[in-house]
This record gives sequence, C-alpha cells and structure tokens, in this order.
Amino acid sequence: MSDLPNQRPAIGTAAASTAPVIVIAPDSYKGSLTAQQAAEAIARGVRQAIPQAQLYLCPIADGGEGTLEAMLHAGGQRRQIAVRDACGTVRQVPVALLPDGSALIESAEIVGITDAGAMTQPVASRSTQGIGDAIRLLLDDGVRHFLIALGGSSTNDGGAGMLAALGLKLYDSAGNLLAPHPDAMSLLARIDATGLDRRLLEASIVGMSDVDNPLCGEHGASAIFGPQKGVTAAQLPALDNTLRHFAALLEEALPAKPVTDNAARLATAAGAGAAGGLGFGLLALGGTLRSGAKTVCDKIGLDAHLQGAHWLVTGEGRSDVQTLHGKAPFEAAARASRYGVAASLLSGAVDLTALPALRRHFSGCFSLTMGPGTLADAIAQAAPLLEAAAEQMASVWLAGQHAATPVVAA
Amino acid sequence: MSDLPNQRPAIGTAAASTAPVIVIAPDSYKGSLTAQQAAEAIARGVRQAIPQAQLYLCPIADGGEGTLEAMLHAGGQRRQIAVRDACGTVRQVPVALLPDGSALIESAEIVGITDAGAMTQPVASRSTQGIGDAIRLLLDDGVRHFLIALGGSSTNDGGAGMLAALGLKLYDSAGNLLAPHPDAMSLLARIDATGLDRRLLEASIVGMSDVDNPLCGEHGASAIFGPQKGVTAAQLPALDNTLRHFAALLEEALPAKPVTDNAARLATAAGAGAAGGLGFGLLALGGTLRSGAKTVCDKIGLDAHLQGAHWLVTGEGRSDVQTLHGKAPFEAAARASRYGVAASLLSGAVDLTALPALRRHFSGCFSLTMGPGTLADAIAQAAPLLEAAAEQMASVWLAGQHAATPVVAA
Repeated sequence: MSDLPNQRPAIGTAAASTAPVIVIAPDSYKGSLTAQQAAEAIARGVRQAIPQAQLYLCPIADGGEGTLEAMLHAGGQRRQIAVRDACGTVRQVPVALLPDGSALIESAEIVGITDAGAMTQPVASRSTQGIGDAIRLLLDDGVRHFLIALGGSSTNDGGAGMLAALGLKLYDSAGNLLAPHPDAMSLLARIDATGLDRRLLEASIVGMSDVDNPLCGEHGASAIFGPQKGVTAAQLPALDNTLRHFAALLEEALPAKPVTDNAARLATAAGAGAAGGLGFGLLALGGTLRSGAKTVCDKIGLDAHLQGAHWLVTGEGRSDVQTLHGKAPFEAAARASRYGVAASLLSGAVDLTALPALRRHFSGCFSLTMGPGTLADAIAQAAPLLEAAAEQMASVWLAGQHAATPVVAA
Repeated sequence: MSDLPNQRPAIGTAAASTAPVIVIAPDSYKGSLTAQQAAEAIARGVRQAIPQAQLYLCPIADGGEGTLEAMLHAGGQRRQIAVRDACGTVRQVPVALLPDGSALIESAEIVGITDAGAMTQPVASRSTQGIGDAIRLLLDDGVRHFLIALGGSSTNDGGAGMLAALGLKLYDSAGNLLAPHPDAMSLLARIDATGLDRRLLEASIVGMSDVDNPLCGEHGASAIFGPQKGVTAAQLPALDNTLRHFAALLEEALPAKPVTDNAARLATAAGAGAAGGLGFGLLALGGTLRSGAKTVCDKIGLDAHLQGAHWLVTGEGRSDVQTLHGKAPFEAAARASRYGVAASLLSGAVDLTALPALRRHFSGCFSLTMGPGTLADAIAQAAPLLEAAAEQMASVWLAGQHAATPVVAA
C-alpha cells in the first residue's frame, strides 16, 4: 500500500489543509484480518468516499496477538530468533527492535494459544521457557529495555519457564532438577534463584496486559483463563496449588535485592495472573505491568497523528462492554477525545446491548455486515465488507460536513 | 409519536435555524415494519444522537403495500368500505380520501398477495372485482379522481373483475354470463361494454405502478409476476392466451369514445401487465399509469420538506440494483439531490454487489444489522435495530458536521 502514508504528518499543518485528515487506527479483527490489513481495507473505503482525504494508517493492538505487527508498522526492525515454543520445540519467531532501543517480545508469537500443535499437549506440560530464551538472546545483544506483550498465551506456568530459562532452578525434595511446567512443579520443594542472569539487574521490563487478575485463587490465572487453555474443573485445584506453592517458594528464594524487594505481594498484585502467571514472573524480575493498549498507542505515536486530525476510525473483531475496559479502540478514542477528534467504531460485530455504553465514547458504532448472514461469511468476506462499510461511514461523515455549510434551496 | 412533527416546516426558515433539519422518509420494511413504524424508529435513533435536530417524518411508498398508510400520514381521511376480496368474500377495507379530493385505493388491501386465505385458492379463480366495487362506491360518494396503487396483488385477471364490477359483461358462446376470473374467461366469446358505469366518463384514474410489462407474452403479467402468485409453468400458456383473447375482445367492445380511443395499443402498453393486468383494465377505462413512488412523493409534499433540509434518511426492507429502478428510496434521494440535500440509505439489508451503483445516489448505505445473524432475528428485532443503526448514522453525520469547524488542538 505504497499510496497510503504511515508517517506522521507535520504537526500543526494538517488542520490548516482543506483536505480532511483522518486517522485509521483499528485493532486486528481476530480470525480474519490483522490490524494492518484492517487499516488498509478501511483506508480503501474511506478514500472512495473522500478521495482528497489525508489518511494516516495506525494499526493498534492491546498487548495480545498482533502487537508486534502494529508496533513494527510504526517503525523499528523485525528480528528472527530461535526459541522454544510452549512444548519445548525450538523454532524461529519474530521479535521487534524498536527505534527507542527497547525490544518487544510477543508472548502470542512464542507460546500462543493459536498454536494448534501446542494446544494438543496438556496445559500442565506447557511452559514459557521461550520467553526467557528471547530475553536472554536479546540481553546477549545488549538490549536492556524489554516490552513483553502478554496476551494470547497458551501457558499456565506462573512464569516458571521464563525464569528457568534465565537461570532459576527448581528442585524436588530429593534434589532433582525439575522441568519448569506445572506437571513437574507439583513436586516442587526448593527454588534456587542465585543463578538468575545478573544482566537483569540492569534491565527494565514492562509487561503489557489489560487484566487485573492475581496469580491464584478464584480470580487467578488458572480459574479465569485456564479453561480456555484446556484446564478442566478437576485439574483446577491442583494447578492453582502448584502455582501458589511456587510463588511462595520463589518469594523466599529471591534476594531482597537486587532482583526485587516486594516479592511478598507479587502473587496477589493486579496482573500477576496475566498470561497464565507470566505477569507474576515478570514482577519477580522487578518488572512492571502496564496497559497494553496504552503502551502501544504511546509507542506508535498515535497522539501526534491525532493532533490536528478531523476524524478517527477504529475497530476490532467484536465490540461489547469489554471494549470499554481498556481495549485498544477505546484507548484510541480516549486519546482522540483529548484533541477534540470524534472517533467512530467499525467492528466485525457490535453487541446491541452495549450500545448505550459505547455511544458515550464513539461517534457511531457500526458492524461490517450488510445484512443478515453467517459469521463464517463475514469472516471470509471481511476485507471487502470492511472496505464497503468504511466507505459508507465516510460518505455519511462527509455529508455531515457538507451540511455544515449553509444550504441553498434550489 | 406526538413529539414527532409531521407537518411541513415553514419553507425558508428551516435552513436559517442552527438545529439541523432532517427528513426521515423510509419505505416500509416488508415483513417487519410499516413505513411509519420505520420512520418512527429512525427518528428515535436520530434524536438520541442529535437531540436538537428538527425531524420531519415522511413515510413513503411505491404503489405497493403500505401506500395507503404513507398517504394518510401526510393527510386525508381513512374510510372503511365493504368490497369483495380476490375470492369474492365481502369484507371491510380502508380507502383514503385525500385533501385534494381524490381517493386512493390500494390493491394490496383488497386483493393482496399477503392475504393468506386468498392465496390458498387457485390464481385462475381470483378476481379484481373488489377494486371495481371500491371505485363504484366512491363514485356514489361523488369522487371523480382516483389513484389506484397497483403493487402487491394476488390476481392475474387482466382487470376483468374490476371492469365487471363497473358494468362490463363477459359471455361464453352460448350467451351465458361468465364470472370475471381466468378460469371462467377461458370460455369467453363476447364482451358487452355498453353497461360500463357512465360516471367513469367524468373520472380521472391514475394507476400507480413501477413496472413496464405489457399484458401478455414473455414479459407479460402471467409470465413475469404469475409464478409468485402460484401460476405454474403448465398453466402459463393457457392463462396468457385467456388474457390475450380477453384484451382483443375488449378492444373491439369498447366504444372508440367515450371510454378510450386507443384500445388497440392498450395490451402492449408499458405497465398494462401491472397487478396481473389490472394496469390494462385501468387503461381500458381511459386511465393513465404513473410511477408509484413519484406519485406518493408528490402527494405527500416531500419536496416542501426537503427544501431547506440538511439531510434525508431513507430506507427499505432490502436494497439492491432494483432500488435504482424507481423504488421509493431512490425517488426520495433524487428529489433531495435537487435541493442539495444528501440522502443516506438505511435498509434491512444491502446487496454488496449493488453498492457501486447505489453509492452514486446515496451518501452512505447501511444495513440495520449489528453483526452476523439470521434474517428471522433481524425481522424480529427490526425496530430496535433500526433505531440503533439510525443513531449510529446520525452520530457519524454529526461528527462530520463538527469536523467542518476548525479543529483546535488541545
């Protein structure tokens, strides 16, 4: 799409132009379009309605699948590295080296829930070792600032795999080294944290997540996110106990300094339960957790695009009340609002019952459907439907703009 | 809906107001909402987005089912009269006495294809006698100007029933009087037109129709509209011959004056095949045929509402390329265009393949669906969905209007 600029406009000049400046910043449409594909489809539609429009394509994400692509669209370099997947098989995955020197690791790329192979293995045998592999390889390259996108993982190991790949050692009562996955960790008796990679002392780590769940308990990782990863009701108590025991031992094993000084509260911290407890693992390394959508919007410089713009079009696969809980389209709309820019939502589907809440944040919420039809058809036709719907939205927007000039009766 | 004005705005003052003036002129959504119900649902949605908007509700129609209601919404009186339905059963039906002294008779109300009872009878036994009954009763009341809405009929009698109710006599070769339906008319040998009601000489009759079909042949009433009324492929040749024979005899029987002077061309005239040949029957009475949508838009004074308005919202059950062939939303949009008013379309469904053509006439074409779902659900939920979709459209329209004022960066 070489005709669709994705560079920042010169700030302050956009509003002075007569052509409307429109920011197109959708999340991915899960199961059908990446955020960039969605942005391109929307742009094609908007351009048909408003050929003179100045369009800025800013695909966004919320820390889940697609975060890496959205970040790379705004700048930085893709790098392939060899790491272990959730089942221990080594394979090439992409990470991003961002313009500010930080590196982005997307959990969904390494231990993703869309990895059909890994999903055939029991969740208790999956591990986040590959995340630790990636951090270690990037440390080798001199990277010291890490962003870890936590959404879309298939694992539920409390981050034990990641920590093990960075030097943590888990033992049973007989002193045998244990693999860092829940099955083996049910025998966990002792943790040795002295071997943790010392370079982590110089590192800053930000986990990108939108969940507030603690590591364990009824709102914990296993109880809330376990079922979609294959955790059965029968397995749940033992799995939850394994993570609780692991957290308690890790807390004891961590030196008060240098890695962290608040281990006592880590397991109950908001977000410790993100990515099957990988959030907890990052906190144990002294990392912090932050909204994925906010982090992405910051890193891609969305505000600079919105300043002086006339309209924001955003969207996602499905919009409902969850959209207003920090999802990427909501974050984009909130930022647009600060600059007096109206935001319209164009999603695969919109929950009718959520409209009263959505309408307070979006100037128009639309589905890409053109009539009754199946989800499968909507997914198969997503790009042309999105393009067509965007054109219709832009046509009405333009009609409103023209109506603002005095009407002269014929 | 007492809070929704349907009176004409004072011409010339609307545009001067700061509140946007919005004309809401949908056709009916077949199977779910009357045009008035649709207009009310759209108005509720628009009002939520633009509380200060000045709304004018102008339900429209194209000469089919719902034409009577749309006309009455703009003025006039409803009157109940007793006439025969397609199978000869007498029942009460509404007609409209319009402010200009003309009367509107809606074929769909008397011999409607949605009359489940009539549809269980063979099409060859159905008759338009009730239309003639209505004309006769209104003649008794002094009415001399008639509008006959031709859409949505279940009959295929060439208008013989109507003419018989007004005095035309059909005979077989033995001189027996025949019933005015195709079954009996297969024996037709002679027509006596001398008994036709003489008051018709003083009457003007306009048939409202959007079809160009002749009475007979491959594009005729039986071939094109017969199948949906129950005409089988096996019945078609005989039925077509019956109407052709009837037309030829009627042409001979009609006096050169006073009823008409161009009977020779009536059967092949454009629109003679409307309403199962009722179009032909009206032509035989010296009537004319005119676009239903144009006639309705004229009679309800749509232009006066559009003059000085800022936006038109129209819609129908399903929009496709047929919409552009004189359907009511197209007619409304064409009139809006003359006054520089953008028209947006909000229908039950929009044919994606028709969008390239529709976009030349509508500033945005939308479906009321909010995502994948069944037709049955969309119909069951039509009113709230239409309201919600209208609100979204109006929100984007308003966003466009606001964007026309210079943007001040925060």
